[in-house]
Amino acid sequence: MKLSDVGEFGLIARLAEVFPAPSEGVVGIGDDAAVIPDPRGGPSVLLTTDMLVEGVHFEIDAVSPRDLGYTVLAANVSDIAAMGGRPLHAAVSLGAPGSTSLDVALGIAEGISEAAAECCVEVVGGDTVAAPCLVISVALTGEADRPIFRRGARPGDAVVVTGALGRREAVRRSGGFVRPVPRLAAAAAIASELDVGAMIDISDGLAGDCGHLARAGGVRIAIEAKRLPIDDATRELCGKLGVDPVELALTGGEDYELAFTVAGGDVGKLASLSRRCGTSLTVVGSVSGGEGVAVVGADGVSRELAGGYTHFGPGS
Amino acid sequence: MKLSDVGEFGLIARLAEVFPAPSEGVVGIGDDAAVIPDPRGGPSVLLTTDMLVEGVHFEIDAVSPRDLGYTVLAANVSDIAAMGGRPLHAAVSLGAPGSTSLDVALGIAEGISEAAAECCVEVVGGDTVAAPCLVISVALTGEADRPIFRRGARPGDAVVVTGALGRREAVRRSGGFVRPVPRLAAAAAIASELDVGAMIDISDGLAGDCGHLARAGGVRIAIEAKRLPIDDATRELCGKLGVDPVELALTGGEDYELAFTVAGGDVGKLASLSRRCGTSLTVVGSVSGGEGVAVVGADGVSRELAGGYTHFGPGS
Repeated sequence: MKLSDVGEFGLIARLAEVFPAPSEGVVGIGDDAAVIPDPRGGPSVLLTTDMLVEGVHFEIDAVSPRDLGYTVLAANVSDIAAMGGRPLHAAVSLGAPGSTSLDVALGIAEGISEAAAECCVEVVGGDTVAAPCLVISVALTGEADRPIFRRGARPGDAVVVTGALGRREAVRRSGGFVRPVPRLAAAAAIASELDVGAMIDISDGLAGDCGHLARAGGVRIAIEAKRLPIDDATRELCGKLGVDPVELALTGGEDYELAFTVAGGDVGKLASLSRRCGTSLTVVGSVSGGEGVAVVGADGVSRELAGGYTHFGPGS
Repeated sequence: MKLSDVGEFGLIARLAEVFPAPSEGVVGIGDDAAVIPDPRGGPSVLLTTDMLVEGVHFEIDAVSPRDLGYTVLAANVSDIAAMGGRPLHAAVSLGAPGSTSLDVALGIAEGISEAAAECCVEVVGGDTVAAPCLVISVALTGEADRPIFRRGARPGDAVVVTGALGRREAVRRSGGFVRPVPRLAAAAAIASELDVGAMIDISDGLAGDCGHLARAGGVRIAIEAKRLPIDDATRELCGKLGVDPVELALTGGEDYELAFTVAGGDVGKLASLSRRCGTSLTVVGSVSGGEGVAVVGADGVSRELAGGYTHFGPGS
């Protein structure tokens, strides 16, 4: 049996069986970040890690090293944001061939440093090793007074996303690159001011990430295609690419926007929160009893969705 | 300019310039683990990370996946031990080709889990990604009431090492493998019961790691070859390999023993501490004013030493 036979989530499920059940109160494998309650009663400690590999997550000729570094750190901050937390300290490991230009390595570091400064993160250490290709691994700590989990979606909740969807994927397919914007301030406001059920950052595509929320919460999520926030620039790029923008908004990975569920009674608070945070907050669907994720098309026809981007799978 | 031109430590020096100076009290790049004082007055937070790459740090055909996983986690625990700290929580990232056997991935996880249980570490999360070769990155948190740094060696201190040196390297060159033993309990006893100046874990070879202590502390270290703890099994393997055991003890990487400096007046306490901890504690040299590392041979001739294993360097 090979990893390509079981796929990324199959592997994660098998790995989870290897490790002992988490201690009392600890949430480990299976959320955006691990959550460890403070035995002294302070904020919970958060820990998240992401590994990016050349040729899999990026091509070094297609992105500036600085943008790459920025994105790696921002992606980790996004995981902390999705828990309703504040990021604190990062450790960065860089694997690289000896033939790598020093400018590339320093450019990656400068991008990491830039994103860290914007997000009040201190880079406190790391590791540098030889490797056959560029590998960047970031571990980021954080804390949260009241962490928000993937598992908390409740029937009756509305499903809300920050910002616009599909843009990074459309730009990528057009041969360009845009930096993600970690929704740190918005996440903090969402977590503290709304009756939030579950939250996740959109890294596998909205469809895949709503799948995570549905599975973790034991609920069903219906997304309405016509409500998906897709900006004009993305629609224009999709037109040139000959791609359906709705499909891209549902399956385009690495938007690093947030998807969360909020009690129906709090939907009325979204407009003022959106103005204050400077990011749109769009209701895109609803939570009900059941399981799975469906998208309701403009024609009113409902279609069951399967996953977003996964590693190791056939064809990946 | 390429990474192979500046070498690992040249790269680290350049990277350190990219990031802002550490906050008040924080010790970042340049020690075994980062140390972040707790603003609320509790123990300092420790954070360390290590990345291991197939073909650079290991060959998957030459080591069992379980031993490999055990070693990765133990190496990180060793970094926390070298700060006089207690390890707490780990996040593990695994990069692997889709063609990797599931048994290999699960074996690595089982080894990590085994070492974690022995060291009271909880694995709380991670990341799994496709990669052209196996890449394992572990981030480990910890805490220390009174962290011990690399920079604290004082003229007049004795240099002490735990356990025996060169064994893992001798076994490796003989085509075998032994697991490292993280010196967690010994480190805690050393840190709390002795007037310790500096401590480091031996991952670049004793010579290289004493070089780190000498540079960080602005001192000179002299090692006496005849005092190096080399066990009979290692001498026998060295005989078969035609290798000088003293050379191997000085330069063999990844012993994961501890090297520390202790006030001359506390040398008398080593024997009883050694008996209690079940590991030998051997005085191998001394600290004086000056700079650099020298080894004094059996003939009384002193030889200046340069570094241990480094990444990216010419020929690596």
